[in-house]
Amino acid sequence: MRETVFTKIVKGEIPCFKLGENENAFAFLDINPVTEGHSLVVPKYPYRNIFDTPENILGDVIVLAKEVAILLKDKLGADGINIVSSNGREANQEIEHLHFHVVPRYKKESLNIWQELRKYQVTETIEDVYKKIKS
Amino acid sequence: MRETVFTKIVKGEIPCFKLGENENAFAFLDINPVTEGHSLVVPKYPYRNIFDTPENILGDVIVLAKEVAILLKDKLGADGINIVSSNGREANQEIEHLHFHVVPRYKKESLNIWQELRKYQVTETIEDVYKKIKS
Repeated sequence: MRETVFTKIVKGEIPCFKLGENENAFAFLDINPVTEGHSLVVPKYPYRNIFDTPENILGDVIVLAKEVAILLKDKLGADGINIVSSNGREANQEIEHLHFHVVPRYKKESLNIWQELRKYQVTETIEDVYKKIKS
Repeated sequence: MRETVFTKIVKGEIPCFKLGENENAFAFLDINPVTEGHSLVVPKYPYRNIFDTPENILGDVIVLAKEVAILLKDKLGADGINIVSSNGREANQEIEHLHFHVVPRYKKESLNIWQELRKYQVTETIEDVYKKIKS
């Protein structure tokens, strides 16, 4: 099996602040958090991204992400939760092992997660994009 | 049943650029895209967010998101894909019906989806946060 920092965390070879697990997924605190309680949920097996992860494994990952979201809301008083997954280097994926960020959000911050991507200049019409997709 | 803009889209009462569906989920192009091909995947029933969505429905939503991600990669030449879900107004959720954004990313842009949230000032140590969660 290919090894990643996350497979080592799952196997206990790298310590982590574990939050939970189920048959195919494992959750722990991100050590470089964007907000307090920022967590990661990963499949136990090192699928690279959403493109190569089987459906049942994806299901286990998102179900554990929901559990972590509820835990962070209840225990840290998060006012909202972002779920974010980056697939491919151009989408800002850094570790080649699928991971879903579970990011608690707090009233005090007034940040907008879309601020950065809104800088992108959309040049094609939605009709033209749809034609390409359906071609 | 509570009505939302998304239940109206699912029922065909509001037109959309439909990309696909399965038993519990429905996918279409976002009409206010951040990048070309920006899509939304929603449960057919109007669950408000990840907190109140049953596990099997979440599974259908993420599986359809994967299919849409592959479609956008293949048809639009996306170099990467972000999956983003906002849960709660403080997480920048605007429509109270769970939705997963599927956002194609392109080499030309050089944007970082984490740029905005990195402005948040983390003040608590990860150890203190973990103690709170485990309390």
